[in-house]
Amino acid sequence: MVFGNMSENSGTGVGFTRDPGSGEKVFYGEYLLNAQGEDVVAGIRTPHPIADLEQVMPEAFGQLREITTNLEKHYRDMQDFEFTIQEGKLYMLQTRNGKRTGPAAVRIAVDMVEEGMITKKDAVLRVAPSQLDQLLHPVFDTKTLKDLTKLTNGISASPGAAVGRVAFSAEEAVDMAGDGPVLLVRKETTPDDIHGMDVSKGILTAIGGKSSHAAVVARGMGRPCVVGAGEIRINEAKKVFTVNAAGKAITVKQGDFISLDGTTGDVYLGQAKTSEPDMTHDFIGKFMSWTDEFRGKFGVRANADIPRDAKVARQFGAEGIGLCRTEHMFFAEDRLPHVQAMILAEDEKTRRKALQKLLPMQRSDFAGLFKAMDGFPVVIRTLDPPLHEFLPKRENLMVDLAVLPYADARQKKEMAARYNVAVGELKKYLPQLLHRVEELHEFNPMLGLRGCRLGILFPEITEMQARAIFEAAVQVSQKGIKVIPEVMIPLIGSVEELDNQKKIVVRVAEEIFAKAGHKVEYMVGTMIEIPRAALTADKVAKEAQFFSFGTNDLTQTTMGLSRDDYTKFQKEYEKQKIFKADPFAVLDQEGVGKLVEMAVKAGRSTRPDLEVGICGEHGGEPSSVGFCYKVGMDYVSCSPYRVPIARLAAAQAAISGDKSEAMRTA
Amino acid sequence: MVFGNMSENSGTGVGFTRDPGSGEKVFYGEYLLNAQGEDVVAGIRTPHPIADLEQVMPEAFGQLREITTNLEKHYRDMQDFEFTIQEGKLYMLQTRNGKRTGPAAVRIAVDMVEEGMITKKDAVLRVAPSQLDQLLHPVFDTKTLKDLTKLTNGISASPGAAVGRVAFSAEEAVDMAGDGPVLLVRKETTPDDIHGMDVSKGILTAIGGKSSHAAVVARGMGRPCVVGAGEIRINEAKKVFTVNAAGKAITVKQGDFISLDGTTGDVYLGQAKTSEPDMTHDFIGKFMSWTDEFRGKFGVRANADIPRDAKVARQFGAEGIGLCRTEHMFFAEDRLPHVQAMILAEDEKTRRKALQKLLPMQRSDFAGLFKAMDGFPVVIRTLDPPLHEFLPKRENLMVDLAVLPYADARQKKEMAARYNVAVGELKKYLPQLLHRVEELHEFNPMLGLRGCRLGILFPEITEMQARAIFEAAVQVSQKGIKVIPEVMIPLIGSVEELDNQKKIVVRVAEEIFAKAGHKVEYMVGTMIEIPRAALTADKVAKEAQFFSFGTNDLTQTTMGLSRDDYTKFQKEYEKQKIFKADPFAVLDQEGVGKLVEMAVKAGRSTRPDLEVGICGEHGGEPSSVGFCYKVGMDYVSCSPYRVPIARLAAAQAAISGDKSEAMRTA
Repeated sequence: MVFGNMSENSGTGVGFTRDPGSGEKVFYGEYLLNAQGEDVVAGIRTPHPIADLEQVMPEAFGQLREITTNLEKHYRDMQDFEFTIQEGKLYMLQTRNGKRTGPAAVRIAVDMVEEGMITKKDAVLRVAPSQLDQLLHPVFDTKTLKDLTKLTNGISASPGAAVGRVAFSAEEAVDMAGDGPVLLVRKETTPDDIHGMDVSKGILTAIGGKSSHAAVVARGMGRPCVVGAGEIRINEAKKVFTVNAAGKAITVKQGDFISLDGTTGDVYLGQAKTSEPDMTHDFIGKFMSWTDEFRGKFGVRANADIPRDAKVARQFGAEGIGLCRTEHMFFAEDRLPHVQAMILAEDEKTRRKALQKLLPMQRSDFAGLFKAMDGFPVVIRTLDPPLHEFLPKRENLMVDLAVLPYADARQKKEMAARYNVAVGELKKYLPQLLHRVEELHEFNPMLGLRGCRLGILFPEITEMQARAIFEAAVQVSQKGIKVIPEVMIPLIGSVEELDNQKKIVVRVAEEIFAKAGHKVEYMVGTMIEIPRAALTADKVAKEAQFFSFGTNDLTQTTMGLSRDDYTKFQKEYEKQKIFKADPFAVLDQEGVGKLVEMAVKAGRSTRPDLEVGICGEHGGEPSSVGFCYKVGMDYVSCSPYRVPIARLAAAQAAISGDKSEAMRTA
Repeated sequence: MVFGNMSENSGTGVGFTRDPGSGEKVFYGEYLLNAQGEDVVAGIRTPHPIADLEQVMPEAFGQLREITTNLEKHYRDMQDFEFTIQEGKLYMLQTRNGKRTGPAAVRIAVDMVEEGMITKKDAVLRVAPSQLDQLLHPVFDTKTLKDLTKLTNGISASPGAAVGRVAFSAEEAVDMAGDGPVLLVRKETTPDDIHGMDVSKGILTAIGGKSSHAAVVARGMGRPCVVGAGEIRINEAKKVFTVNAAGKAITVKQGDFISLDGTTGDVYLGQAKTSEPDMTHDFIGKFMSWTDEFRGKFGVRANADIPRDAKVARQFGAEGIGLCRTEHMFFAEDRLPHVQAMILAEDEKTRRKALQKLLPMQRSDFAGLFKAMDGFPVVIRTLDPPLHEFLPKRENLMVDLAVLPYADARQKKEMAARYNVAVGELKKYLPQLLHRVEELHEFNPMLGLRGCRLGILFPEITEMQARAIFEAAVQVSQKGIKVIPEVMIPLIGSVEELDNQKKIVVRVAEEIFAKAGHKVEYMVGTMIEIPRAALTADKVAKEAQFFSFGTNDLTQTTMGLSRDDYTKFQKEYEKQKIFKADPFAVLDQEGVGKLVEMAVKAGRSTRPDLEVGICGEHGGEPSSVGFCYKVGMDYVSCSPYRVPIARLAAAQAAISGDKSEAMRTA
């Protein structure tokens, strides 16, 4: 036992060999004279910056600097130390590798390489992929959070801190966005809400999990998002939500400020302060370039649907687009009417007419993606979602139809505006529309008429999309930009389905090349997202030039788990240790992973040069990225804002996971 | 070339060595004098019964009898022959094994064994399992069909012919059933409709496939059923359906007679004549007993939920119940209110109170099943379906709530009756109910809160069911009847889920045995109906004492195919040869079967004496039964009315499929 409280020539302190917040190489810490360790931590007396110690006890200070520098060299890492000075004599109490923020972790790792203390490999292994999140998203100033009431804790779906006024519908969010930051609060989001999500600083939903619509879209947009906040009760009509928090029922009205943390899932009433990330530091670029050295050929692509997202993805280092969801382009205001006309068409001719309207729009989107990806591959998935997603909701239509006979002039006018018809037409139009919606209604849309099933039933849709892809490819390629389209057929369960759709794609491509007198290299492949496709992968690979694992759907089907509904029992399942982690965030290697591994092996047994990747949400989750490397995939693809994380996780997997090399093809 | 039209001493005829309709051993056929073969077939002249030929040309007749008898002996099968007599001299033109009806096939096979012509094994192999259908269900008199207009052809979901007056709701079916035969016509059926299905001679639905609710329940009841008749448009409000047939729009009103053939899927306007099956013939019993000899230990059980069905199953030769769906007992009028109270309960205490009401009802059901199965095993599945199935439909509630402010007294009264509350309470009750229904609403209920997930979230439900099972088992066993309960946990994806539920079952069982001072042997096992359970079967078998493959759900998840929705593209998929057969009728051996085989092997690798069976609809389909035998299952289980078919298919598999013996355990 030594005593720092023996005299004014004694003291105690704690410190770090570098700044654990910023990573800067400064001697960092604090001390108190005539005090014991607890006094420093307890906060009763205000300690002094450690630098001041040099004036007070120059000898002890010099010794402390020397010892801690040696400790850092010995342990080859930033040290977190405690010391006591008794009557002028320095005693070291403890030293350990210090905890640090994400930015500090990167900076320290880079500095130590440049100081010759560690290797690049050490540096890459030392930063946890999750620590990069702090470099990519705004974070809360934790001090300002203390004054706010915590409303609830939901599922952290897209990282980062956001502050804004509550809007309960996409339309209101758009209206309010001009006057300052908005947060969109919805029971759940649907493709209709995209314009509202786009103008919002963050998104909060009452239901859904990590791969719900809100979560996927928010991550794609890099927008903070909390989902499945089951404790909040939204009353959309009254434009309020209520929640029991801090021992009372709190009502939050439209326009009230809330703050949400998409990294932790916490939601607060009021305005917290946030600090913006800064990716421009030199050390970050250096660090990321090292990760690329180590991951070698194991690629990282991004899921991006529009040229804007593709550009963000490139900035984050994506080497191509692993998933372009063509239908995300269908919800734009100028397109939806044509999409609806296509769906409501009673015959092929009418349908083709509507498709003709969509063709130039899709073509220009694809051209934009090809340009943004300049020489990198672009995987384009043909139409995937059930058609009723593009139509009004059945139950709302039923209610409108039931209320119509009693509606007054104002209500009728509102209704007419909603359905984009004249008031006088409502009586005829609503039953017709409902009839078609009923025809398309499904009990389990996830397992219904979607994916390649749509293209097989309506080949003219696939045809239009193939035309848009290859016309755009030829156009861009003729400008001297290298274009690598990879056309991906979704939701196949058998090689016959792929074959059916591939024939259409190849025919259209050849037609366009012949007409233009200009060829473009391309591939046709498939998503593996249904267990049957994985189980018959050897046969599927006869037609598929590439596989891309759609692990969202593959998790849903393999586990019999709807990503929109599982939050009802998720918490209990985590409590009972049935879920070791959220299976829609972290790939279930034991079950889903087993199918993935089987399919990679079977596919390569038929076609050794089969390109294999993943485009499910797991493609940006570190442990899942490691798994993908291990089973021999060629690349992972994830939301643009997760690309740096995936690059780091891939590098770490490559460093530690050499055993997979045997499985990988050149 | 010989000439039967050379003189009155010439002639021609066709015949069978036995009656191809009944199988009776009589010389069967017809002839014409002074005629050529075409004259007999063309139907211009009326041919004479072949027996008459004996009077006209005794010598030629005697020769014909001798030759055809020898041909039959040579080919060891009933012969279908053609002959010509030219100037008194007999010429045989052709002979081949004759086509025959189901009853004839069985009778001929049995007779030939008794005549020493073929072995029992030959006999069993000679009857196609599908031919037994004709012995089990009424069939149409095809002559009377010719006068009727064929309305449409749907999916044949449950075999047999039915004639009745159209009813558009379960309630109307019940009301009308007193006045004569009724056919229930619905867009789809739900558990609410069971009482209406029960009083109907047959069921016709506009949507759904071979494993839709209507199909499964109808097969269980042995009621003819046609589903997915997409061409009919039902207007429930007007109580009519319309269909384009015979070149015009036909409207069928409530009370109009229609005839439907569940074997072919055909639906006719008007009343056809039917003939009832007769299973009492000696030869049928003999034939079935031979099938049992050959299938040996490979068992056939039945899916039966109530004692009445269990008795039918025993009569058809079932050796136990492979699946009792406990929830089918929950829709009875005296139970549904308690089930709803259980669901609407906000806390465990209220829920337990409602469960307490259900306990004696479930106990008496189980006691009935155990008695009926006297010494044979009874597999009882714990609660499986999503809870909202027991509540009013969300969209109907939304409409009622929207219309309530405008409703007049009569409408309000109707509404109040529908929800079983006073008129004055509607305003408060409907929003409350809707709120709970919204909470339970799921986007993909098939993949949602159901199966073991219910029991894990609400352990008191499993507890009550276990209590009912073991109290009934002890009760019946104490009367000296052997009871073999097998408690089956549905929808598990991991061994942890099974373990959670098994603990409850075992605890309750031990409590009851201790209290009664009486023990009953029992097993706890699981359904394998989710790919993940199959993929981790080695681990699942650590806790499971038996596996039962739920191939309906396993097909849905493995193929990503909703059985309620796939009929939208089924026809196109069959046309394109993507589906070689309906995957919900014939097990997809390449995909789903691969998982099944993997799981059987993995399960037995952990627990060599693991009991393995199938309880999906495929358990009664001949080719699937063969597959089950081949992969080493111990038994198949199917609807009671398909038990004889399964017994025959099992025998045929056992005869031809010896290679699987290695996989089977004693």
